[in-house]
Amino acid sequence: MKLWLNRALVDAGGAHIAPNDRGFLLGDGLFETLLVLEGRPVLIDAHIARLATAAEILRIPLPLSPAALKTACADLLAANALDRAPRASLRVTLTRGPGPRGIAVPPEVSPTLLITSAPGAEPPDSVRAVISTIRRNTNSPAAQLKALPYLDNVFAKEEAKLAGADEAILLDTQGHLACASVGNVFFWEGKKLVTPATDGPILPGITRASVLALARKLDIETEEGLIAPDRLLRAEGIFLTNSLTGLLPVKKMDGREIPAHPETQRLSDAYEAFIRRP
Amino acid sequence: MKLWLNRALVDAGGAHIAPNDRGFLLGDGLFETLLVLEGRPVLIDAHIARLATAAEILRIPLPLSPAALKTACADLLAANALDRAPRASLRVTLTRGPGPRGIAVPPEVSPTLLITSAPGAEPPDSVRAVISTIRRNTNSPAAQLKALPYLDNVFAKEEAKLAGADEAILLDTQGHLACASVGNVFFWEGKKLVTPATDGPILPGITRASVLALARKLDIETEEGLIAPDRLLRAEGIFLTNSLTGLLPVKKMDGREIPAHPETQRLSDAYEAFIRRP
Repeated sequence: MKLWLNRALVDAGGAHIAPNDRGFLLGDGLFETLLVLEGRPVLIDAHIARLATAAEILRIPLPLSPAALKTACADLLAANALDRAPRASLRVTLTRGPGPRGIAVPPEVSPTLLITSAPGAEPPDSVRAVISTIRRNTNSPAAQLKALPYLDNVFAKEEAKLAGADEAILLDTQGHLACASVGNVFFWEGKKLVTPATDGPILPGITRASVLALARKLDIETEEGLIAPDRLLRAEGIFLTNSLTGLLPVKKMDGREIPAHPETQRLSDAYEAFIRRP
Repeated sequence: MKLWLNRALVDAGGAHIAPNDRGFLLGDGLFETLLVLEGRPVLIDAHIARLATAAEILRIPLPLSPAALKTACADLLAANALDRAPRASLRVTLTRGPGPRGIAVPPEVSPTLLITSAPGAEPPDSVRAVISTIRRNTNSPAAQLKALPYLDNVFAKEEAKLAGADEAILLDTQGHLACASVGNVFFWEGKKLVTPATDGPILPGITRASVLALARKLDIETEEGLIAPDRLLRAEGIFLTNSLTGLLPVKKMDGREIPAHPETQRLSDAYEAFIRRP
């Protein structure tokens, strides 16, 4: 198996991260996870644009141009014989690179860029979710970035597993609905589709944005805003979105059965067609 | 230069972290930073105890016993000729180790243990601090652990630098005083010493605990609790604590000159004597 490290394809066994990499020591970095269908990374321009925006906020220089990054992804998929696989995934990780002791950002940095691929598993049909005790930080700029620190998400997912569920839904520290441990959250109120706005501490999901755009095209009424969590608990249908799973229905929310909302299927079909268009 | 990786001393140049280490990919791990005086890691038992407690919370098995961990630290200091240096530091990093794609904790893990040493610089005499816009998450168990995700702290420190200061003071997401970007915070109201309680989202600092114990021995009145930040801004003396710097006076807080409080020096002298006792 190969992976891409900095400027070249290398054997996975010979690819190493320096022990003083700030990604490893401090979570000082970002990542993107992409679905790959028949060798084509889905919505790769949107993922690269999000990475570039976040890197600018963190002031981490991107070591490759968007075009070179796309070529690196294609080369990696080909090297791992995933360029014709029906389904695979890519993860692009960018860190501030090695640094001296301490948290202060060094004046000169040499960022680390790692791209890995994996054969793709089919997503589950649906998940059981619970509200987590862990909340998403309203007062942290990192909460709106796909940043390396995912320990809260790991904790929340473990907590959900202990509660007999698959996924955790996080509120923000002010008590509004935020997101799932690995995705955004949507729910139905009658025929209206509701999701938290991206000015809160949530990741501006790429699947989330596509789903909202498709919903509007299909004349589905949408609401983005500060959402009280009891509205989720009374919802007539719930689904999560993430790049690898698309629209993932929630069949149980805090123990309550959630019916399959007919509009979720219609929207999911539209999304699957959208990401498979040539 | 050598470092300790997992079960052996290795050359720093040949020491590598696997690209699928969950510490690197997700911030799924912990660390400790220790001051070393004349080759002796200061309060190492307390650091190892805190690491062990946090590892239990995260369910990361400690690959070495406390005794073996102490031997590893001693061997590393000797290998790097820091066993007689007046001042040095150690960092012990523990991650959940390599894992497959995704955030779910694998059923079996092989944790990564990295110990690095560095020659010690003298701490500054004092720092200028500002209140950060970034807040410490009241609803995250990780906020009470010395966990790898330090991106919020990196952000806060950069923000402080942009404001012409050296250090950032973080409130918690409920608006109480929390801690500095790399340490705990104390201040004086008359002759009373005040610091946030550890039931809030702050690290239970080892220097913090020593300072409180010494203050009580010196018959200094102390208060630990939920602290409104305006009390800090009106304080008659402020200092930060961390293992590497000991008691670090704040000479400017949000632009206001903070006088040197006579009790800070007395407490600092007691602390220096305490950590240098045989």
